[in-house]
Amino acid sequence: MNFRMIAYSVGRILTVIAATMLFPLFISIYYKENIASAYLIPIIISVAIGALVSIKAPKDKSLFVRDGMVIVALSWIIISVIGGLPFFISREIPSFVDCFFETASGFTTTGSTILTDVESMRRSILFWRSFTHWLGGMGVLVFTMAILSAKDTRTTYMMRAEMPGPVVGKIASKWQFSIRILYMIYIALTALETIFLLLGGMPLFDSLVHAFGTAGTGGFGIKNLSIGYYNSAYIDYVVAIFMMLFGVNFNIYYLLLIRKFAQIRGNDEIKFYLGVIAAVTVIITFNIMPIYHTFSNAFRYSFFQVSSIVTTTGYSTADFVTWPMLSQILLVLLMFMGGCAGSTGGGMKVIRVLILMKAGIHAVKKAASPRSVLSVKTDGKKVEETIVRGVLAYFVVYMLFMAASILIISLDNKDFATTVTSVISVMNNIGPGLSEVGPSGNYSGFSTLSKIVMSIDMLAGRLELYPILVLFSPHIWKRSK
Amino acid sequence: MNFRMIAYSVGRILTVIAATMLFPLFISIYYKENIASAYLIPIIISVAIGALVSIKAPKDKSLFVRDGMVIVALSWIIISVIGGLPFFISREIPSFVDCFFETASGFTTTGSTILTDVESMRRSILFWRSFTHWLGGMGVLVFTMAILSAKDTRTTYMMRAEMPGPVVGKIASKWQFSIRILYMIYIALTALETIFLLLGGMPLFDSLVHAFGTAGTGGFGIKNLSIGYYNSAYIDYVVAIFMMLFGVNFNIYYLLLIRKFAQIRGNDEIKFYLGVIAAVTVIITFNIMPIYHTFSNAFRYSFFQVSSIVTTTGYSTADFVTWPMLSQILLVLLMFMGGCAGSTGGGMKVIRVLILMKAGIHAVKKAASPRSVLSVKTDGKKVEETIVRGVLAYFVVYMLFMAASILIISLDNKDFATTVTSVISVMNNIGPGLSEVGPSGNYSGFSTLSKIVMSIDMLAGRLELYPILVLFSPHIWKRSK
Repeated sequence: MNFRMIAYSVGRILTVIAATMLFPLFISIYYKENIASAYLIPIIISVAIGALVSIKAPKDKSLFVRDGMVIVALSWIIISVIGGLPFFISREIPSFVDCFFETASGFTTTGSTILTDVESMRRSILFWRSFTHWLGGMGVLVFTMAILSAKDTRTTYMMRAEMPGPVVGKIASKWQFSIRILYMIYIALTALETIFLLLGGMPLFDSLVHAFGTAGTGGFGIKNLSIGYYNSAYIDYVVAIFMMLFGVNFNIYYLLLIRKFAQIRGNDEIKFYLGVIAAVTVIITFNIMPIYHTFSNAFRYSFFQVSSIVTTTGYSTADFVTWPMLSQILLVLLMFMGGCAGSTGGGMKVIRVLILMKAGIHAVKKAASPRSVLSVKTDGKKVEETIVRGVLAYFVVYMLFMAASILIISLDNKDFATTVTSVISVMNNIGPGLSEVGPSGNYSGFSTLSKIVMSIDMLAGRLELYPILVLFSPHIWKRSK
Repeated sequence: MNFRMIAYSVGRILTVIAATMLFPLFISIYYKENIASAYLIPIIISVAIGALVSIKAPKDKSLFVRDGMVIVALSWIIISVIGGLPFFISREIPSFVDCFFETASGFTTTGSTILTDVESMRRSILFWRSFTHWLGGMGVLVFTMAILSAKDTRTTYMMRAEMPGPVVGKIASKWQFSIRILYMIYIALTALETIFLLLGGMPLFDSLVHAFGTAGTGGFGIKNLSIGYYNSAYIDYVVAIFMMLFGVNFNIYYLLLIRKFAQIRGNDEIKFYLGVIAAVTVIITFNIMPIYHTFSNAFRYSFFQVSSIVTTTGYSTADFVTWPMLSQILLVLLMFMGGCAGSTGGGMKVIRVLILMKAGIHAVKKAASPRSVLSVKTDGKKVEETIVRGVLAYFVVYMLFMAASILIISLDNKDFATTVTSVISVMNNIGPGLSEVGPSGNYSGFSTLSKIVMSIDMLAGRLELYPILVLFSPHIWKRSK
């Protein structure tokens, strides 16, 4: 393994993260919060370490797949530690493990919180908390590469490790160019949502942090009632629609821009994604009608929650743990699916679920007629067997990882629904679960061990398992010497 | 599809099932229960239908894989209906759907019951209920073939559809011979357990029905407290050890008989199975020590429950829903694994879980070094890629089937633990689950729809999904015309 190159890459990311902390620093000065040191200290630490390890580029720039994975996994863990320092130094979150949990939850766009009263927090702290969603949504590595000119084509290994979905497609011939287009779309959509929220009478600060939380499909709010606080149908619909938009593969927007409509029409993933949202919204609407009396109210709360959960954002406008079990089970199943590949959403990704379902049907047909020649198809084309095989294996690793996590969390002796859905929620980067971790609950009641395991679950979920597993795999470290 | 041959085969199975009902008939006469008609009517119906469709063997005896699957799926559904008639006619179970549920639960060796007071039932009824476990454990088709001389080699398709595990291995060169050996082992072990139970002071009737329940890894009891009623450490250990023995691949016993010890030592499945039982028993023992005070008591209850759940029997000596969540989660995870392939146990089977875990590790290694050549190994040999691929696909079909079932069951609006674990329990042919369906609960509170879905889940679980899916698949029926 190329340790010098790994250190160099992590160092560059640290420098960029230091720069992003200037934003909350300025905000804390603007609001005269007197906690400048909470940002200055981590900035100085990051720049110092970053400069130390990346001041001189290593001669041997070769990177293998496993190096890329180690860089990504290490970077995300380190920024979750460094990014948690402002909470710790400002004493807004007294426990260091809680700070790590909250920051990992931010960067991974999970949105699970250990805070019991978010409204008592300082503004710059709330801003930084939501800003981590926005940075983590597109990927911190991608962000770094968009800023610094990375000419080395080998960095694609890192890209692959951080980008969601089973296949990484470049939209333009050069990575650098692709990333810039994606970031422009990301910034434009975030700005658009901010404007729509402002038009609904939401204050500028609130509009901005909620746009960050939506764009990254994170879900950190600044009110104890989440979006429910504003009690406005207009705001509910704006947020719900933008959540849905951020769960779409960004390549679709690029295709829209260059007017390749036929390619969008032929895309099975987007059709399935929208179809599932429509179907589940309708079922839940009728299921919760007795609670909300009118169709329009039931539809409003149903659509918001479906959009929030399927995109793995996690905002809420209603306490869905009081809904009938059918609605709760539907929401839990949506947690597994998540957003489209190439979106900021978490979960297994729509395309994987689609391939799994088709592979399932394929297996039944094959069982009935073993000699028949059949294949799994999406977008009208055959999916290569190596991709199908990869998705099947991913599902197994994913379920085993989840089972192991649930087992450790069960040591806390919470009820079954809390134990199981808290892990489902953090691993899919959602935020809320059922029972104690429902929309009106939080994660403060878990033990230190559980919080560390859940933080790793969030990182594993966001980075699609392998980078984190490779980092903790003794086999890899042994082979590399 | 060869409909005449399908009808002929189902007819022969019906005739055999009619013969098995003579046993409870004699018992009801012996105990002067005056419900002879409850057995005579289904016997006459079965023989009449059986004779009608199987009196003349069809000229075209060709059977394809899908015909075999349809025969197996149809036979199991029909015997669950016919086998339920004694409960219905004797008015011991007034609802017809409940009778179907109870009989499907019997034949599939699930052991989930809708009865609220089993001790009030007539003896011949209790005998028949437990006898279905014994018949279903080895497979009704296998039983039919053991009795009737099936010379047609094509019947292996049916065997494959009914036998558990990803690979069906013949122990002798002829199926007929293999089956007879397996049945002799089955009968010998059942007789041995009956004797051991008698020695512990259990009445003959009780010993016999509990031996049936253990042998088939079914779990129907005749006391409201299950095995806990006898309150005897000796009986607990006898049942626990025999449950464990019936969860072992029967080929192992054949290898023991012919003294091929080296082959047993090289068998990864049995080592993993025994290792998991030992490890989980120890963890749960320490976890429940505060409840049972002494180590020996905690060990007794832990070992019994672990053996009962992993073999998918479902007997209980303690109400494990009152145990700490760690123990409950461990038991739920064991439910997924089940017994060894080629045993009477349900679940996914140990060998599949072993292959899934190895495929998971393989996927992580492959993700780190995409070009390396690696393979999944068991018993020191490479597992063929088609087998690994098949097991991966099986897992996906299994999870999707489970998710769909949970969704329908959630319409009953039970709590989360009941909704989820009732489906996990029936699909893996266990019996009890958590919360409302725990050892002190039962399945009487579910809706008719849920009971039908759960009955299908039991059949799907017992027959390893494909036969039931193929039967309900319009695609197959269309192609066959």
